[in-house]
Amino acid sequence: MSDALYTTPALAAIFTPEGNLGQLLAFEAALARAETRAGLIPAEAAEAIAAACRVELYDVMALYSDAARAGTLVIPLVRALTAKVAEPGRAYVHWGATSQDAIDTALMLQLRAALNLIEADLLRLAAACARLAEAHRATLMPARTLLQQALPMPFGLKAARWLALVVRQACTLRTQREQLAVQFGGAAGTLAALGEQGLAVADLLAAELGLVAPDLPWHAERDRTASLAAALGVAAGSMAKIGHDIVLLAQSEVGEVGEASAPGKGGSSAMPQKRNPVDAVLAQAAARLAAGQVTVLLGALAQEHERAAGGWQAEWQALPDLVRYTGGAVARTADAITGLEVDSTRMRANLEVGGGLLMAEALTLALAFQLGRPEAVHLVQALCARAVTAQTSLAVIVAADVQVSAVLSPAEITATLDPANYLGSSGALIDRALERYHALLTESS
Amino acid sequence: MSDALYTTPALAAIFTPEGNLGQLLAFEAALARAETRAGLIPAEAAEAIAAACRVELYDVMALYSDAARAGTLVIPLVRALTAKVAEPGRAYVHWGATSQDAIDTALMLQLRAALNLIEADLLRLAAACARLAEAHRATLMPARTLLQQALPMPFGLKAARWLALVVRQACTLRTQREQLAVQFGGAAGTLAALGEQGLAVADLLAAELGLVAPDLPWHAERDRTASLAAALGVAAGSMAKIGHDIVLLAQSEVGEVGEASAPGKGGSSAMPQKRNPVDAVLAQAAARLAAGQVTVLLGALAQEHERAAGGWQAEWQALPDLVRYTGGAVARTADAITGLEVDSTRMRANLEVGGGLLMAEALTLALAFQLGRPEAVHLVQALCARAVTAQTSLAVIVAADVQVSAVLSPAEITATLDPANYLGSSGALIDRALERYHALLTESS
Amino acid sequence: MSDALYTTPALAAIFTPEGNLGQLLAFEAALARAETRAGLIPAEAAEAIAAACRVELYDVMALYSDAARAGTLVIPLVRALTAKVAEPGRAYVHWGATSQDAIDTALMLQLRAALNLIEADLLRLAAACARLAEAHRATLMPARTLLQQALPMPFGLKAARWLALVVRQACTLRTQREQLAVQFGGAAGTLAALGEQGLAVADLLAAELGLVAPDLPWHAERDRTASLAAALGVAAGSMAKIGHDIVLLAQSEVGEVGEASAPGKGGSSAMPQKRNPVDAVLAQAAARLAAGQVTVLLGALAQEHERAAGGWQAEWQALPDLVRYTGGAVARTADAITGLEVDSTRMRANLEVGGGLLMAEALTLALAFQLGRPEAVHLVQALCARAVTAQTSLAVIVAADVQVSAVLSPAEITATLDPANYLGSSGALIDRALERYHALLTESS
Amino acid sequence: MSDALYTTPALAAIFTPEGNLGQLLAFEAALARAETRAGLIPAEAAEAIAAACRVELYDVMALYSDAARAGTLVIPLVRALTAKVAEPGRAYVHWGATSQDAIDTALMLQLRAALNLIEADLLRLAAACARLAEAHRATLMPARTLLQQALPMPFGLKAARWLALVVRQACTLRTQREQLAVQFGGAAGTLAALGEQGLAVADLLAAELGLVAPDLPWHAERDRTASLAAALGVAAGSMAKIGHDIVLLAQSEVGEVGEASAPGKGGSSAMPQKRNPVDAVLAQAAARLAAGQVTVLLGALAQEHERAAGGWQAEWQALPDLVRYTGGAVARTADAITGLEVDSTRMRANLEVGGGLLMAEALTLALAFQLGRPEAVHLVQALCARAVTAQTSLAVIVAADVQVSAVLSPAEITATLDPANYLGSSGALIDRALERYHALLTESS
Repeated sequence: MSDALYTTPALAAIFTPEGNLGQLLAFEAALARAETRAGLIPAEAAEAIAAACRVELYDVMALYSDAARAGTLVIPLVRALTAKVAEPGRAYVHWGATSQDAIDTALMLQLRAALNLIEADLLRLAAACARLAEAHRATLMPARTLLQQALPMPFGLKAARWLALVVRQACTLRTQREQLAVQFGGAAGTLAALGEQGLAVADLLAAELGLVAPDLPWHAERDRTASLAAALGVAAGSMAKIGHDIVLLAQSEVGEVGEASAPGKGGSSAMPQKRNPVDAVLAQAAARLAAGQVTVLLGALAQEHERAAGGWQAEWQALPDLVRYTGGAVARTADAITGLEVDSTRMRANLEVGGGLLMAEALTLALAFQLGRPEAVHLVQALCARAVTAQTSLAVIVAADVQVSAVLSPAEITATLDPANYLGSSGALIDRALERYHALLTESS
Repeated sequence: MSDALYTTPALAAIFTPEGNLGQLLAFEAALARAETRAGLIPAEAAEAIAAACRVELYDVMALYSDAARAGTLVIPLVRALTAKVAEPGRAYVHWGATSQDAIDTALMLQLRAALNLIEADLLRLAAACARLAEAHRATLMPARTLLQQALPMPFGLKAARWLALVVRQACTLRTQREQLAVQFGGAAGTLAALGEQGLAVADLLAAELGLVAPDLPWHAERDRTASLAAALGVAAGSMAKIGHDIVLLAQSEVGEVGEASAPGKGGSSAMPQKRNPVDAVLAQAAARLAAGQVTVLLGALAQEHERAAGGWQAEWQALPDLVRYTGGAVARTADAITGLEVDSTRMRANLEVGGGLLMAEALTLALAFQLGRPEAVHLVQALCARAVTAQTSLAVIVAADVQVSAVLSPAEITATLDPANYLGSSGALIDRALERYHALLTESS
Repeated sequence: MSDALYTTPALAAIFTPEGNLGQLLAFEAALARAETRAGLIPAEAAEAIAAACRVELYDVMALYSDAARAGTLVIPLVRALTAKVAEPGRAYVHWGATSQDAIDTALMLQLRAALNLIEADLLRLAAACARLAEAHRATLMPARTLLQQALPMPFGLKAARWLALVVRQACTLRTQREQLAVQFGGAAGTLAALGEQGLAVADLLAAELGLVAPDLPWHAERDRTASLAAALGVAAGSMAKIGHDIVLLAQSEVGEVGEASAPGKGGSSAMPQKRNPVDAVLAQAAARLAAGQVTVLLGALAQEHERAAGGWQAEWQALPDLVRYTGGAVARTADAITGLEVDSTRMRANLEVGGGLLMAEALTLALAFQLGRPEAVHLVQALCARAVTAQTSLAVIVAADVQVSAVLSPAEITATLDPANYLGSSGALIDRALERYHALLTESS
Repeated sequence: MSDALYTTPALAAIFTPEGNLGQLLAFEAALARAETRAGLIPAEAAEAIAAACRVELYDVMALYSDAARAGTLVIPLVRALTAKVAEPGRAYVHWGATSQDAIDTALMLQLRAALNLIEADLLRLAAACARLAEAHRATLMPARTLLQQALPMPFGLKAARWLALVVRQACTLRTQREQLAVQFGGAAGTLAALGEQGLAVADLLAAELGLVAPDLPWHAERDRTASLAAALGVAAGSMAKIGHDIVLLAQSEVGEVGEASAPGKGGSSAMPQKRNPVDAVLAQAAARLAAGQVTVLLGALAQEHERAAGGWQAEWQALPDLVRYTGGAVARTADAITGLEVDSTRMRANLEVGGGLLMAEALTLALAFQLGRPEAVHLVQALCARAVTAQTSLAVIVAADVQVSAVLSPAEITATLDPANYLGSSGALIDRALERYHALLTESS
């Protein structure tokens, strides 16, 4: 399958060979400008270099083919770039830099663009969750633990928990984006080729590119990339949580939600009646793929000496793939939630599936005030057992029970067994999630 | 092998059955106190419950055996606890809580204790790195990229990069520790059993335990645990980086560092001359084990509905193991660095291994000022090739080269080829790492 | 949580410190016997060594404590063993072997014992699946794809697919067990200390222990352990498939199966009505933990030179944990399936959940013979849409449709829409799975 | 980076959108032929279908774009194919099959092609290892354990161990290739749409495509794909072992091997003297990427009911990527070994690095015959310590030692300390590896 299924076209475009080359050239141009500002190279040299830093001047496929032989794209690129730079710039191309400076920094620039896209989709998803949370404050459904009906809850609370989860991911990824750092250390991380000016150039370069200037180069200390990878993995996995919930809620036997229909979406090649979830399924698939890349990046932390022989080179593929898949998971989840069709009638009906047994805790509490908790627990377990045996509802059994009627009036029983009266702090929790979301929007604007 | 090899005794003690039980009981006691403060249960009830919340009152193995049947430790524990609580407390045991509230919160309490221990070892490691960075500002050695000698560098810079890495991990784990949150949502996350008081109890409970009070319960939204897991995985992998460097530097043919000898350490059952690295090796082993647990925790993010059926239950083992291994990796690395024996003579000698070819960049730069960079690169490549062919040093070849002597005096050549003159910003980078370290110490005190 | 939840007591016992020590001593005793048979050491020496190879003679905890310092258990063990061996044996302890020979071989012996236990549980599970497959040939239920009802199928076919999956795992693990190989290469894999006799001793040692004699020592080529790890990971994941199916079938809204009840099993600390799946849940948790260990073992394949510095040491923990978790997953799944309560009434009822739309393919086929397939597909899609809109069953819509009645009689329609008539090769597939199972039993006996 | 770095062009070509589409069409054509042979559909229908099963008839990008919406490529493909089939074939397109039948089977066809390519590269690699093993039977070098020199060994033995490892991978992958099975179960795995003919069609389809006919469809039992994935992961990791050895041997301070030079290979953008390993580095990177995909595939085993909602869809990307990376690792390793430059002088010289201490075991054994082993061990440890303290060689110390001269003549000492006399079974082990290799070649031809 092409990765059309697992990412978005915009993310895919960032990580094409052309996209990569463009950011490598952006690094080289910015480096020359920074070195001009540091007084190291003539301004005309920087201009000549910048003039040659345009993707369309290069045979991208030939460069990649040379890269496969050289072991890195930068060697053939610097050669090709140098050949295109007019004098007096030629001698100053890539001055004081090493391949890894270019490759890592270009990757950070790609990641910045990608994280911006992902954040936008996270906000789109958050908005959709917020709408659901607001709209379904009073839509009752069964809460389920270990996939068993547990208690009633408003669907709005489920959406609010999704919302809070999404808002946290947006915050985390924003923080990660703001920490993206330039890489600049020269051949061995000492900036030796730049004499006294090394740190000044590093800072100017960071400023040119709008990246953070780190304390030290980080050629072989990869906690930055690994932490970013981990944050992406958590974000992707969070999408899988939402996607998994959707798929479970959309089961034929549950039927509480469905993805929006669209022509050509969710059909089956064999069964005309099928309306399969698509976005939630592919969000989960993308999240699984993302998690696989995180293992690569965590496993690659033990990099050798001043530059690694294997671990770093694996990052070149794993980190872009991770970003692409995470973004795909976010976009698919946003699509699924944005168009989600909610069947509140079915939700309400499902509350009755177990004969109202999910009101057992509420009944226990009501009885506990009168009978003490142990006795109440014992009595309710017996009532539940009788309801199951008699294949009737808890309400019927309770209404006929003398122990209960001794302490609760029929009206009290009815009120106790009404799911709408047993929602606890659901409303307040929905409010909290919405408040946090609105705070994020305020920060963003 | 027992996990004596992969963790510390203090960390192991936190995660024993007794350690786990102790924190579960701490939760139950704190909950009762919080509910008293919220006016929900009588003070005597809370006192009676607290009195029964002592590990030594329980048959730990019997509880775990029941847990294997019940699927959770909390069911048998609440039963046993209730049986031990004097009236009028009995009816109020575990009031309004669900198993997951207890299990997750107890785990957070264990993690807090563990993160405190790990942070102390990180600071011990940082101190040792800082000493090396300071002491070896002028100890020259070869920087190595792709395991090939690249340029000269001071060993102090390598230690400074380790230091910066360690300091970042200490900061990250401290942040994680400060974010550890109470879990409290009741049976289905609605706090239904506590009526209007749910959120108040949650906040009071958090205060009792010194944990963060989160916006919402997080029963099935596991980005918190996954983020913590990821931070631990990054910290463990960072130790593997340092350990891997040590093992590489300690190779027979490199011989630049060795672990401190001790009776019974690093010998071989077959070879009397062997002095194997031990701590650096086991740090790497522990880090590998840690990374494996991170995959479990990332893979477990897609938890079902309001409580998961499998993913959460895997966390019970994976997260403690992850913490234990990470702490083991940190402690082993701290041991290795603290006792590290540095052979600066061998470091200096290794600079000559390649006939001084690692000064090629320095020579190129010196020549580039006279000849232009392309010509200088070309000339130096030729000189290097001649040195290799003639099996002599670059210095010898350069001294005899007329092109070089045309632009550089013998004294200039000598100065150019002196590694001590080609360290770039190494000193300033060492200073930066030390400053950051001292700032951390200030924050800590 | 203790690992009582994730493995069986018998498996746990194999991998205790005592269990490990016992197999290390078994190696040392067998080595001495082999060397006697090869004429290298006196028979009395082998007897003296064997006499000292009893676990109860050793202070296990002290040995492990020394191991944490030595980096391996074998150094202190050989020292302690030597001290206990009567002359003339003392000089011949561990003769020609290296630590890794002992550690790897002891692990293989533990694995053999563990694989035997796991195989027994796989056969227990297979027997339970076979009973279900046989008993439920005619128990109709909905087949579900993407968690949407698709077609009718017999529950026996689902059990047959589980059975075939289990049988394949039993075969794979048996093959792995039969390939467990002795490790014997001496200090560096050359068997140098044994002169001309190295290979002869290796073969005799394998024979003594009942292990395979490999072509070459495999100290740093770990495809054997990695392949075994992978097979265990696949087996554990296969259990997760079955466990996941059970949990999905046991959902309140599906209700087709339930785990056998038992006192203290599957209750909730908050909700008296809950009957949670326990075994299927913990099987999935154990399988997740197992998968995490596989990543460790695959990641450890790149071992250095003749003995690794980190990767191998990680195996000591990861491989035993992997086996223990896999065995736990198998045992839990066997428990779940053995006691599975099947609600065939609910299965039949669920076939009606979607208004019989899952018979759409059957209807399409029946109509395709008359109308051609494209027209039939088109017509059935329209009929399904009308059933959905009218909130009635497909049967009602079809009975009233003139296009259908033009080509199918009422009796034909009824037969076409009867799920029992649309089971294809289900019976034959069940037979195939049972045949394969019986063949396995024959091989086993 | 493009995947030019991590795979081969031939493997990449198999997994393009066109490559995938081609195999999907091969499935559809073969299915029609099989159904003709089973008497289900007219021969002209099969011919008409086959005529439309040519990749060049389709707008591949449009199909993939539709696939992103449909959630699977097969829905839009079957629609497009049907439109192109001349009557009377149209009604018989995809008859009785489901999307997954086509997708899985097409993937198996791609995998078969890919495994053939990988096997060829494994044989190329094995041939190169065999040449090294044969040529370097007497090339002495230090064996290294925990990266410390241990004993002398012939380089040919290291090559022989690589050879044996490679041969085992070739066998395993060949077995996997021979087990590739057709997928054919229809909409829900019952073959319902084919009435009595389902299994017959499945067998005929397998025969048409040259794939194995499995006992049962395996839509949601993914042990087949997971086992294949694991085998690929082990093969990739085995390449990482060899690549890692090469990189370690190529270190500046070791210098025993180097990759063949080539224009544009292994240079540095900053350091003219560098000759970096490239193939061994990228082999390791590819292997790391491969391992990441294995986690995805193992994690995806728990597939829901009769077709998964997420796990299966992740396989579509992870399995092709895994194959591509594994093949890349194999090809890179084959390149590295084929051109490996071996510096036997340096190997010999490195034996002296530790003052000949690596002959300590040999000396111990020689003395043990005279002094008893404990005394010999004790004496040799003292001799080693004196050599280290005096910074001289073991030979010098031994020659001057009276205890030694009391039992060994000068000639015996010289012979004892000659590495060439302490190679144990190295030659026999090389022979065994070569024999196994030749047996593989015989099986292959």
